[in-house]
Amino acid sequence: MKVQTLKGFRDFLPLEARKRQYVIDKIRGVFESYGFEPLETPALEFKEILMGKYGEEEKLIYDFKTRGGDEVALRYDQTVPLARVIAQYQNVLPLPFKRYQIQNVWRGENTQKGRYREFLQCDADIVDSPSLVADAEIIKLVLSIYEALGLDVKIKINDRKNFENLDKKIVSAIDKLEKIGESSVLSEMIEKGMNQAEAEKVLSVLAGKPQTQNIKTVFGFLKDMGVDTANVIYEPSLARGLDYYTGIIFETVIEGSTGSICSGGRYDNLIENFTGRPVPAVGFGLGLDRTIEVLEAKNLLPTFDSNAKVLVSIFSTELGKESIKVASEFRKKGINTELWFDAADKLDRQLKYASLKNIPYVAIIGPEEAKNNTVTLKDLKTGEQKTATLDETVKTLV
Amino acid sequence: MKVQTLKGFRDFLPLEARKRQYVIDKIRGVFESYGFEPLETPALEFKEILMGKYGEEEKLIYDFKTRGGDEVALRYDQTVPLARVIAQYQNVLPLPFKRYQIQNVWRGENTQKGRYREFLQCDADIVDSPSLVADAEIIKLVLSIYEALGLDVKIKINDRKNFENLDKKIVSAIDKLEKIGESSVLSEMIEKGMNQAEAEKVLSVLAGKPQTQNIKTVFGFLKDMGVDTANVIYEPSLARGLDYYTGIIFETVIEGSTGSICSGGRYDNLIENFTGRPVPAVGFGLGLDRTIEVLEAKNLLPTFDSNAKVLVSIFSTELGKESIKVASEFRKKGINTELWFDAADKLDRQLKYASLKNIPYVAIIGPEEAKNNTVTLKDLKTGEQKTATLDETVKTLV
Repeated sequence: MKVQTLKGFRDFLPLEARKRQYVIDKIRGVFESYGFEPLETPALEFKEILMGKYGEEEKLIYDFKTRGGDEVALRYDQTVPLARVIAQYQNVLPLPFKRYQIQNVWRGENTQKGRYREFLQCDADIVDSPSLVADAEIIKLVLSIYEALGLDVKIKINDRKNFENLDKKIVSAIDKLEKIGESSVLSEMIEKGMNQAEAEKVLSVLAGKPQTQNIKTVFGFLKDMGVDTANVIYEPSLARGLDYYTGIIFETVIEGSTGSICSGGRYDNLIENFTGRPVPAVGFGLGLDRTIEVLEAKNLLPTFDSNAKVLVSIFSTELGKESIKVASEFRKKGINTELWFDAADKLDRQLKYASLKNIPYVAIIGPEEAKNNTVTLKDLKTGEQKTATLDETVKTLV
Repeated sequence: MKVQTLKGFRDFLPLEARKRQYVIDKIRGVFESYGFEPLETPALEFKEILMGKYGEEEKLIYDFKTRGGDEVALRYDQTVPLARVIAQYQNVLPLPFKRYQIQNVWRGENTQKGRYREFLQCDADIVDSPSLVADAEIIKLVLSIYEALGLDVKIKINDRKNFENLDKKIVSAIDKLEKIGESSVLSEMIEKGMNQAEAEKVLSVLAGKPQTQNIKTVFGFLKDMGVDTANVIYEPSLARGLDYYTGIIFETVIEGSTGSICSGGRYDNLIENFTGRPVPAVGFGLGLDRTIEVLEAKNLLPTFDSNAKVLVSIFSTELGKESIKVASEFRKKGINTELWFDAADKLDRQLKYASLKNIPYVAIIGPEEAKNNTVTLKDLKTGEQKTATLDETVKTLV
């Protein structure tokens, strides 16, 4: 038996799990401050719900047949399940529907490129509003999230209208401009059926395109929202990969770092596949991994000590009862407390454990302490220790 | 295309999702107050990790072959992945390892019995301590969780030693005593090879078994921990279904309700399958659904209004800018705020939306308000409305 995880799948040990929880809680707080409400959808959907929605990427979907004979697929993104939810509950959902969703998605990506096959997405979408105020709010929301995380970002913004008369294949070539450079994009455009002169012209016309009316309007709303629009950059060649975008599109970038950490846009036609009537929508997806990587690289995450403030050690079998009582008292007072379990273990082993877990204090109740109703508290950072009554010790710890 | 979820799988719309989040946060808070640390494992594992661990239930596992040729299975519980983690990271994990895990599991259950195929488990385990203090702490932890949730529970406790000389099949028959009654259990015991007299004797001997030394010791530790042991009931015929228990076992029950809402025990041999050396462990699993059902039935959940405290309505296209500014100011002051997007929508529609979502207040900025730099705030519960400066309005809302 191979005792290991599948390629592209990860365990999150405590420190990693707490780091993630910290960032998720921050993001959730911002979502809620904008009045977005949580939604959860199942890990498995009927396969046909997912099929025909992701273009070429469809081959990365994990799908299988259950023992009961259902053709199913693992959640690939959170937008298609949202579209299904809109259709399924359209009579009970308040519209516009502003939801956030923070769940794992699964994609059979090439792990050699350092990609994960299970990763957490944080999405927010506004469904059933055609207003550009909604586009602006989505962009402002992204800026607010990174502000809450202490990270300076810039938003690149464009309007899909700038690509109106271009084939989707050509758009997907242009999408790679930042990544592979102009000459490679030109080659790809030529490969996809243009001649050199045409391709060059498309790129140069694109680069010179003035702001569309929609872009101008969104800039206006962003200013009204108090956004420093120096951080929002109009980029007429920004394309975004997904086929389904229909209007404003954007990417979030960090200076000194390539690639987007969060992106989105307006998709007014996707949900119609499920509802049978047009339902305009705008939103974004934030990949937690990239955001955490950047936060770590810039030292923007707090240090995580143990969840416990104190380890109550056990001196001997006879005195175990005293330790149990002290631990219970600490917890009653709201102090996160670990209790050692095995009286047979030497104090040294117990101290090492506390130190390995970054527990700040160890409480010791030996024969003297038991006799005098006191506790000796050792501060593992300074090495100092102090014997005091339980009440005084509690005061040190709270 | 069937626009629906798979049988046994659920969407959680905002109200439901927030209810769940509330309970999860409570449970997590208690886990952390005891110094337990979070762990997350992947949804998919190599199939062979899961096989041979769950007995007859193994057939409920969702397994499939990926396009890449891996034989994989969806997480069926959180104990087997924990055992894998212990083996895989044994050189870096501080021992004893106290972890909690709050993730979905998937089981191809019979949905006609009202069972779900995707459901959230909240587990806590102490790995690598043989001490009965650990068993007592796990039981105390369960009691603390339900205390935090405001629910009175009782714990039924037993020692697997009471079944020492009985075949596993007989134990699994006795496990059904509460559910199907004595005569049905007797029939099942006879079916499984005993004669009537033997079966009756086993049950009567079991019913009269005195507390084992371990049970007595755990009761002592629970008293030291301040537990009212009137709520912990020794029940010598309590068996628990899972094969892998080796010592203390327990169930959490609610008066006036049948079945257990949370259960666990000591399993000193399971992890050895992965580590090759004995690693004692004790823990429990809490199914979120049953706990929420009971909390709802007993009216122990708070009412959830909208995440937003106020909806800033939009009066007209011209005045949209004023609404945007007011919403931004509210958010800056830490007030969870929704902004309406479409100036074309009548105020009536906007008010209806706020009322449907239980948003307590609607802010209106019409021509008069814009001219005088004021805001009219409508309290949707009382119907009252008040026009005041932005600062005064903020004071009403915070």
